Amino acid sequence: MEEDEINGLRSEIRDITEKIMYDVHKRMQISKRIGEIKSKLNVDVTDEKVEQDIRKSVSKLAKEIGMDNEFSGKLLNIILTESVKLQQRQQYGRTQRQTHLGIFMKAKELEAAGKKVIHMEVGEPDYPPPKNVKSALIKSYEDSHYHYTETKGILKLRQAVANKVQNSTKADQVIITAGARFAVFSAFASLLRIGDEIVSIEPAWPAYKECADFVGAKINLLKTTLEQEWIPDVETLGNIINTSTKMIVINYPNNPTGKVLDDKILEKIVSLAKDNNMYLLSDEVYSDYAFNGFKSILEFGYDKSIMISSFSKGYAMTGFRVGYAIANTHILDKMAKVQATTLTSVAEPMQYCALTALEGNDPSQNKKKMKKRLDLICDRLRKISFSLFEPEGGMYVYPKFNNEIQDDDVTIVERLLDLGVAVAPGSGFGDSYRRFIRISGCQPENILQQGLDRIEAAIY
Amino acid sequence: MEEDEINGLRSEIRDITEKIMYDVHKRMQISKRIGEIKSKLNVDVTDEKVEQDIRKSVSKLAKEIGMDNEFSGKLLNIILTESVKLQQRQQYGRTQRQTHLGIFMKAKELEAAGKKVIHMEVGEPDYPPPKNVKSALIKSYEDSHYHYTETKGILKLRQAVANKVQNSTKADQVIITAGARFAVFSAFASLLRIGDEIVSIEPAWPAYKECADFVGAKINLLKTTLEQEWIPDVETLGNIINTSTKMIVINYPNNPTGKVLDDKILEKIVSLAKDNNMYLLSDEVYSDYAFNGFKSILEFGYDKSIMISSFSKGYAMTGFRVGYAIANTHILDKMAKVQATTLTSVAEPMQYCALTALEGNDPSQNKKKMKKRLDLICDRLRKISFSLFEPEGGMYVYPKFNNEIQDDDVTIVERLLDLGVAVAPGSGFGDSYRRFIRISGCQPENILQQGLDRIEAAIY
Repeated sequence: MEEDEINGLRSEIRDITEKIMYDVHKRMQISKRIGEIKSKLNVDVTDEKVEQDIRKSVSKLAKEIGMDNEFSGKLLNIILTESVKLQQRQQYGRTQRQTHLGIFMKAKELEAAGKKVIHMEVGEPDYPPPKNVKSALIKSYEDSHYHYTETKGILKLRQAVANKVQNSTKADQVIITAGARFAVFSAFASLLRIGDEIVSIEPAWPAYKECADFVGAKINLLKTTLEQEWIPDVETLGNIINTSTKMIVINYPNNPTGKVLDDKILEKIVSLAKDNNMYLLSDEVYSDYAFNGFKSILEFGYDKSIMISSFSKGYAMTGFRVGYAIANTHILDKMAKVQATTLTSVAEPMQYCALTALEGNDPSQNKKKMKKRLDLICDRLRKISFSLFEPEGGMYVYPKFNNEIQDDDVTIVERLLDLGVAVAPGSGFGDSYRRFIRISGCQPENILQQGLDRIEAAIY
Repeated sequence: MEEDEINGLRSEIRDITEKIMYDVHKRMQISKRIGEIKSKLNVDVTDEKVEQDIRKSVSKLAKEIGMDNEFSGKLLNIILTESVKLQQRQQYGRTQRQTHLGIFMKAKELEAAGKKVIHMEVGEPDYPPPKNVKSALIKSYEDSHYHYTETKGILKLRQAVANKVQNSTKADQVIITAGARFAVFSAFASLLRIGDEIVSIEPAWPAYKECADFVGAKINLLKTTLEQEWIPDVETLGNIINTSTKMIVINYPNNPTGKVLDDKILEKIVSLAKDNNMYLLSDEVYSDYAFNGFKSILEFGYDKSIMISSFSKGYAMTGFRVGYAIANTHILDKMAKVQATTLTSVAEPMQYCALTALEGNDPSQNKKKMKKRLDLICDRLRKISFSLFEPEGGMYVYPKFNNEIQDDDVTIVERLLDLGVAVAPGSGFGDSYRRFIRISGCQPENILQQGLDRIEAAIY
């Protein structure tokens, strides 16, 4: 008898499934038609307001009929994403974003063909890691430090990182990751679900968007401007947030702008995250290059904050691929699970090198060097056709072309590449920054001068 | 006028969206009711046959109404997954799987508390990496090899790997990954979509399931038995495959069984993959430990095969975290994108160490050593209450308790741990292997003897 009931219910399920698919398809057809009209009217495909309305109505309905809100949200996101995709097909092909890494690869090709290129496009220090790292490499072999380690990293390194960042931080609040990029990825992958939304402040390191895309999260952008000294408007930030927003991502000292945030604004952002029970991910990889002081997110004691940093910039150890995250153990356990699943653990010799780098080395020498270089870049740029914000930290200058320059960033970057100097196009850090380039200070001063000579020649 | 049309269409969209959600909810209610009945009848929640029928009917409908097949499949998968989740809630809590890593962690805790434990649970060689790796570590600093590298790894290492594996392999068919685990993960993440299915042969290294779960792919299992000498039945394998199956995963020499597959069976599996246009991922990390020869998947020249290996086992370099995959460039480009997004690149000093390990070192010394150890283990086990398959490769013995032993694997493993010897529970490699344990040969012979003494004491 129960068998009969199951069979009956199964046939009901088949019918209703077909009905759902049919309606979804019908919905797509309508959406496509809207896309056609939008294309004719030359209107942007995504319409936040309309999306928000639909979200609200679905959320209300889910509540009324007792449907799981998370599930209905996920389903809706998939349908909305498909709609946008369909509508975009109606519009003109979008230009592929050209990032600093793309230019780096092009520059490498030119070099392979015999051309000399000055690299002012990448964020990789030209100076070496601390000297005692060399003996750490030898010692790692002698001490048999070439095994799997705990997923969260060797305890000594976690302890040393805890001591470095803040007195009250404990080793169990630290995870050692395969670079800061993997810290971002594992935070996104473990804390966000498909269809969740995050907010990032533009211009921004492209990795946030790449990682968000990878895990199926939607990234909403708060734009900042040179004219407003790259200060994010917290009120606007508040308006971008909706019930699907699970995380705010900030990055100060900022790549590419060199902005360091005022404590008060940071405090407002923390409050906003707190009030909306959101994660607050603070990428602080450039904190060793804060020229006039810097307040870490850790000092605000917000339980859902994740501070990310690495040894790549402060200790010039990019190729060692060692980063870390600091958060509560609940968050870290989730991130560790991602690391265990995908990597087992971080290379043990590299962890010991990072530990040694922390012992008896002060990254402030690198900071002084970088500050002098960025000053040099700013001085030269001011004399050419650029407006700029003087970096308060980081390793870059992000100048804007003055009005007499008609070309966009990619055109100029390619012209510069022909002249033997590689810089990063501004739009790699956000679609609307087509009048910017990013110049990196990761070269000795005499090389920077040569590069700037070529830039000057190209601009005039 | 067009504005009016848009508004009308938008209100239609709102209505139809609500209708979809309402129907999905109704579907869930029916599904829940089926779950209740199944629970009463004590039937398993997942029913492949029913799922297949629904898939087929939806696929047919999609074709009829001109709906994107990929999109309809994705939507259906999300609905089906939610149904299974709902039904599982009706049933009893599932027991958590205890893996070799879990036992390793427990053993570490006991050691921290002062207890001595013999580690026969993990697959980590006790002997060191090749000696010239030490000079490679020093040289990496001296040569400034501590930078970002190409995402796919340094060309020299890719070339050296290509030379090692097969004469016809070219460097552009090789990607260097952060360990073989990351190779598996990046292959899954780049080649599978949510709801895609893969087939794995049990008993199996748990990473395949972990990575499949992570990317939202469904894993179907073909069981093999000791009685059938761990030979997979290719006909059954063919029956498990359906239109959603995108990949077969194989691993020979096998962890944990030590099986090496006969060429003819391997050929049949390749044909099956070919006939169904599926990827064939062959994890060959134990190929340096094949005692009587071994044929790599590469020798079959199947275009959609992915061969994965690493330096961890053959060269005893677990902690360096360097693995690789060999496949066509189309597949590699996709895998490289995953690596670029999550890791940037593999630590450069570690890549140079791997390169040096390949130069002038022959892993066959390690193979001889391991073979002798596994023989020793087998000899001892045969005298106790175990049935076993003599390993044809790998680093493990996977014996089965004879009938006079009543307890299951986890009970015995815990009893052994109390006696100071850690082994891996058989069920860590597949739910149905509760009468097996995995014993690793990664200890010197005298230590293995001591461990086996304790096992003997525990069994009698």
